[in-house]
Amino acid sequence: MKRLERMQQLVFENDSKILFWVFDGIGGLPHPETGKTELETADTPGLDAFARRSSCGGMVPFGPGVTPGSGPGHLSLFGYPLEQFDLPRGVLEVLGADGAYHRGDWVGEVEPGPGDLAMRGNFASLQRQDGEMVVSDRRANRLATAENKRICEMLSRKLQVDGYTVYVHPGKEHRFALLIRGPDLAGGLTDSDPQKSGIPPRAVEAERPQAQQAARVCNEIIDRATELLDEEPEANTVLLRGIGCAPDIPTLEELYGIKAAAIATYPMYRGIARLLGMDILDVGSMKHEDEVKTLEEHFQDYDFFYLHIKETDSVGHKGAFDEKVQIFESVDPLFERALELDFDVVALTGDHCTPCVLGDHSWHPIPTALWSKTVLDGGVQSFDERQVRQGTLGIIESRDLLPLALAEAGRFKKYGA
Amino acid sequence: MKRLERMQQLVFENDSKILFWVFDGIGGLPHPETGKTELETADTPGLDAFARRSSCGGMVPFGPGVTPGSGPGHLSLFGYPLEQFDLPRGVLEVLGADGAYHRGDWVGEVEPGPGDLAMRGNFASLQRQDGEMVVSDRRANRLATAENKRICEMLSRKLQVDGYTVYVHPGKEHRFALLIRGPDLAGGLTDSDPQKSGIPPRAVEAERPQAQQAARVCNEIIDRATELLDEEPEANTVLLRGIGCAPDIPTLEELYGIKAAAIATYPMYRGIARLLGMDILDVGSMKHEDEVKTLEEHFQDYDFFYLHIKETDSVGHKGAFDEKVQIFESVDPLFERALELDFDVVALTGDHCTPCVLGDHSWHPIPTALWSKTVLDGGVQSFDERQVRQGTLGIIESRDLLPLALAEAGRFKKYGA
Repeated sequence: MKRLERMQQLVFENDSKILFWVFDGIGGLPHPETGKTELETADTPGLDAFARRSSCGGMVPFGPGVTPGSGPGHLSLFGYPLEQFDLPRGVLEVLGADGAYHRGDWVGEVEPGPGDLAMRGNFASLQRQDGEMVVSDRRANRLATAENKRICEMLSRKLQVDGYTVYVHPGKEHRFALLIRGPDLAGGLTDSDPQKSGIPPRAVEAERPQAQQAARVCNEIIDRATELLDEEPEANTVLLRGIGCAPDIPTLEELYGIKAAAIATYPMYRGIARLLGMDILDVGSMKHEDEVKTLEEHFQDYDFFYLHIKETDSVGHKGAFDEKVQIFESVDPLFERALELDFDVVALTGDHCTPCVLGDHSWHPIPTALWSKTVLDGGVQSFDERQVRQGTLGIIESRDLLPLALAEAGRFKKYGA
Repeated sequence: MKRLERMQQLVFENDSKILFWVFDGIGGLPHPETGKTELETADTPGLDAFARRSSCGGMVPFGPGVTPGSGPGHLSLFGYPLEQFDLPRGVLEVLGADGAYHRGDWVGEVEPGPGDLAMRGNFASLQRQDGEMVVSDRRANRLATAENKRICEMLSRKLQVDGYTVYVHPGKEHRFALLIRGPDLAGGLTDSDPQKSGIPPRAVEAERPQAQQAARVCNEIIDRATELLDEEPEANTVLLRGIGCAPDIPTLEELYGIKAAAIATYPMYRGIARLLGMDILDVGSMKHEDEVKTLEEHFQDYDFFYLHIKETDSVGHKGAFDEKVQIFESVDPLFERALELDFDVVALTGDHCTPCVLGDHSWHPIPTALWSKTVLDGGVQSFDERQVRQGTLGIIESRDLLPLALAEAGRFKKYGA
């Protein structure tokens, strides 16, 4: 029997409360001048005290050396083995959008349900060359974002495919995303985007028989959008890529018997959480303090809370070492405030590392501290990338953190007699 | 999706350079008198300085407790999961031979290609007992090695099977190996060696339908060799075991996109490397200094270098503690010299441990230090069996070292968005 199925059999419910405090892109690497990492540089008495009474270590999302995106990083963080579960790129794009237009109306965030087809799109330019239409600019001269919005609204009014509902999600510059709802859709489709200019766009093709209807719908959308864009000055077609169906994924309640809530200020993370069956709590602002306030207000209502701090990743991508240090320092008292709630288990962790010296996600183990009354602490003086390796947790797979937290919460029966 | 397939999708090429410096049988255990291991005893300032700026830990080739031979040890070291790939014992024997006779000529090392059948052999003695021929000595009175050579040369002239090419590899005392090339050969065969005397040899039998032709060929070889040995004073038959086909194994370039070269002075290691698609560089002597010189001369020509030091294993088998210490000390400056080349990633490691107190391979994690500009160092003062466990690498599977090295070399795309 696979471990996940075994877990499902062993899990039971109690009234314990678990918090996953997630710094996106948490881990870093030494600054070339000081030799100290972001967390080693930051003055974070709250995180450090927490680490001293926790079991500390590192987490690897999908085997040593693999750098995860936010999708795989979060799936594994919530106990979903990546060999079994996947989030297509287009689904993540829809989840990450602020919202969508539908028949000319702004309808806000749309939840991709099982069987909904999602995809990334570019507004692009075609021109005639030697008797055929070829891509002259894959990004339509990097369309103004306001133009993008206007075009998405227009398309949502006029772009209709019989029997299907289309949601058009505007993005930045030339980028958008589509969500298509209707019968007989399935993933396994090639991109229409040829990835370079000077050649014609490709037709979307089904890579397996079940995807043939989805291919027809995509190609109809491309043809219809190209007609509708005929009068536009810069974009006169759309290129589609990363097409896939929202997975029929078990909820956290189905897998692990927990009623879960997400506190996140950015759409993609709310979207992933919603896909896994979490309730999305309204923070009302982008402020970290309001995230903690939301946690306090709903503390009685859920078994499991996912609280997401996005900015550590954003500044990591910019390579802004000092800013990342400063975010840890400013969030530190808020973390301490959250600990005043009566949690049974608290994990301080991340979805992946985003070291400022790399300016991107990395493969390094995610610094992690797990606290409960039954945890074995020791070995650690502060919460940072090097110290946690001396802790009692060792290096685990990300997918194992939630089962460990459930164990610390007394939510697993004994396996066998 | 399995990790190896995922890796293959993520890998891309750049101009980085990686060195795997491999001490065969690297790890040891405490000397009963001093309580210090071989590496703790050795004075190796070069290895120690390298460890201090590296991510250190231990590697397990195939799960805790499993002691690997050289074949599995090296396969996993080069990123081949042992659940998916195997090297039959006979193939390793052929790879480890100095060379072979073919039709009476010495043809040197022979490369076992996919579908070639390889096997280990013993020259043995039969005698009549109660009306049947039984094995009286499985080792033909431990034949003189010179006699073995003479017999192998003779067999290579006269031992012919229609449609098949036979290479006869002499070994020490009674040992030899055969490589058979021709149509319809497949592994899945029983040994003819009965493993004890006083009973008749067995016929080679096919354990699956595809191996039936191979079984016929093996039995014809046994019959024909027995006829040819009729006049010999000591050996009058051959016993075959470990029969198997050379695997159709993807090259390192196919798996991980690296152009790889091997620098090794012993045949088996060159053979394994050749099987994985590495170029074999001519060292021209058995001297470690010449191995480093070869590395320097070819530095521009490859992405990945495997440099193999055999003697740490050989003296480990002898239980010669002081000799092993001395080899580490004498190689230390050569390792430092190799580091003067402009490598992006260097791994200091082994294929398995050969502790002198055991006089054999062991299951203990392989002391390992991985260096690059983006590695997280820390926790380690010197390179030895105990210190590396305080490092940031933790204990990983051997198959994960190459993916980690590729990540440190910037050769992986992000997984998911």
